[in-house]
Amino acid sequence: MKTEGSIQDLPAVWMEGSDVVMIEQRKLPGVFELLRATTTDEVALSIRDMAVRGAPSIGATAAYGMAQAQMLGEDLDTAAEKLKATRPTAFDLFYAVDLMQKLARTGGDLAEASRSYADNLTARCRRIGEHGEKLIRDGARILTHCNAGALATLDHGTALAPIREAHARGKGIFVFADETRPRMQGARLTVWELMQEDIPHALIADNAAGHFMQRGEIDMVITGADRVTLAGDAANKIGTYEKAVLARENAIPFYVAVPVSTIDFSMEDWRDIPIEERGEDEVLSVWGKRLSPEGARARNPAFDVTPAKYITGIITEEGVFKPEEIGGLKDRLGTL
Amino acid sequence: MKTEGSIQDLPAVWMEGSDVVMIEQRKLPGVFELLRATTTDEVALSIRDMAVRGAPSIGATAAYGMAQAQMLGEDLDTAAEKLKATRPTAFDLFYAVDLMQKLARTGGDLAEASRSYADNLTARCRRIGEHGEKLIRDGARILTHCNAGALATLDHGTALAPIREAHARGKGIFVFADETRPRMQGARLTVWELMQEDIPHALIADNAAGHFMQRGEIDMVITGADRVTLAGDAANKIGTYEKAVLARENAIPFYVAVPVSTIDFSMEDWRDIPIEERGEDEVLSVWGKRLSPEGARARNPAFDVTPAKYITGIITEEGVFKPEEIGGLKDRLGTL
Repeated sequence: MKTEGSIQDLPAVWMEGSDVVMIEQRKLPGVFELLRATTTDEVALSIRDMAVRGAPSIGATAAYGMAQAQMLGEDLDTAAEKLKATRPTAFDLFYAVDLMQKLARTGGDLAEASRSYADNLTARCRRIGEHGEKLIRDGARILTHCNAGALATLDHGTALAPIREAHARGKGIFVFADETRPRMQGARLTVWELMQEDIPHALIADNAAGHFMQRGEIDMVITGADRVTLAGDAANKIGTYEKAVLARENAIPFYVAVPVSTIDFSMEDWRDIPIEERGEDEVLSVWGKRLSPEGARARNPAFDVTPAKYITGIITEEGVFKPEEIGGLKDRLGTL
Repeated sequence: MKTEGSIQDLPAVWMEGSDVVMIEQRKLPGVFELLRATTTDEVALSIRDMAVRGAPSIGATAAYGMAQAQMLGEDLDTAAEKLKATRPTAFDLFYAVDLMQKLARTGGDLAEASRSYADNLTARCRRIGEHGEKLIRDGARILTHCNAGALATLDHGTALAPIREAHARGKGIFVFADETRPRMQGARLTVWELMQEDIPHALIADNAAGHFMQRGEIDMVITGADRVTLAGDAANKIGTYEKAVLARENAIPFYVAVPVSTIDFSMEDWRDIPIEERGEDEVLSVWGKRLSPEGARARNPAFDVTPAKYITGIITEEGVFKPEEIGGLKDRLGTL
């Protein structure tokens, strides 16, 4: 990931000794700060309170958290339990913790294993970029939702990987970035990443995506996902379902970009995906500024599910698949 | 409209002598303040910069502005031109100014005519409430978008009128209020009005409406509109089109509530409705707080159009009509 000034090529999270170090994403883009988690509780808190976010980055942070626990001689089952109790929707979290626990049981060195997990993830994102780039035509106007960029995935991104790649190849693309209320990951993080790469863009209110689709100003949609089911349904940031329905209504292709670690090959029915409901205050206030009167009530689901029928294709490091092909990949990809 | 403390039963805008006085809606609900416009330029500014907003309230403000110009002996054609140049989408603005100009040409007293326009509007909203209330079943969970309440319509509301009426009749309703980025009329104004009436509610991010529809938690949608065409299409606050498409996808009835003054019987094709595009800063900042990096770009359409096929019914003071019935009402209602 490119950043301004002297800080260059940082991933979203990494290890220094037994410390898990990460970019403090809650303060971006106004303040660039690092957060250092020295205990399992601190790592868990950084995930739960969203200092680090994005399913793949959460997975890597949890892998490092397991490595830290091993290095400090802590009980790995307790550490695993704490880490898994942070956020319910993103599958990479469970995938990474289970993988580390399995390796530890057979005597594996988790410092090494977690570093390799992170390196693999970055390589996977690059391949997602290469596969996805082929779907983007010259001059395409692409909508994305939330932030599925470098910050969400250690580096390069999932949804943003094909976009970066197409831009690097001179395809003259334009990106519409949904601001993504309530936490504004689009306004804060996606726009920031696009600016680092000089990718032409427009930030829009989430309400405006449908209007631009209706007026023929959007050619395709690419988002990330927090969990993909066996049937090819995708849980992702709240609002993704809305944009997918609107894309289909306007005959616009809708792609989901994920590493295989986001696919939950054990989940058949999307209704079984746990949807995190966060605090009311994220809706009643914006960035610390209270807008609604005291006593007002709110509901705040953090994710929604886009059923497979709205998804044109799922872009993975192993290639682009139709949602209905995901189930058939279980034997081939479910053990990666 | 109910307000807290000693200020009771104020409409959104009224006249005192030749002054046009209004509730300063940009500062609500934190600060309750009145704005006094003493010249045509000040009245025009109050509309353009949204101290007063909502199509019916804009219409009444413009009618008062014409009355003020007549009382001060100003040229009415110049005043009409200034008032009509403020905002392009809301039809009531053009309807009210044209009506006042026509009355003035035949020697009418605009002080009297504008007061009567406002009184009529309030009576119309009450009838919208009575007609619309019949569509609401006991225990209904209703989604609304933006603010089509008392503040938008002088008193009582359009979309909120049936909701108030159903609540008053003890129907045990629940309202989901879209916060309505970028200007947050839902978070600031609709929630405030619902709280005044003790109507159970939840403020939600605009992104969450689809999720609640998909999960069967919303039974119907009622919004206002800024302009309705001869074909029954409705221009309204940006995001309305998104919610209408999602409602149809989930087999949820979608109603638009407007006084007849919002119906533009001269407009056949919704693509001809001018869509106001406002400044980028409304998207790049939230309530004065800048979220995106300097140099970021944005697009900010203030309205979108919901084609008639997504609309179940149009609730007016004359009854509830199917969109395809609107054209046939031209001779009956077009001269009100």
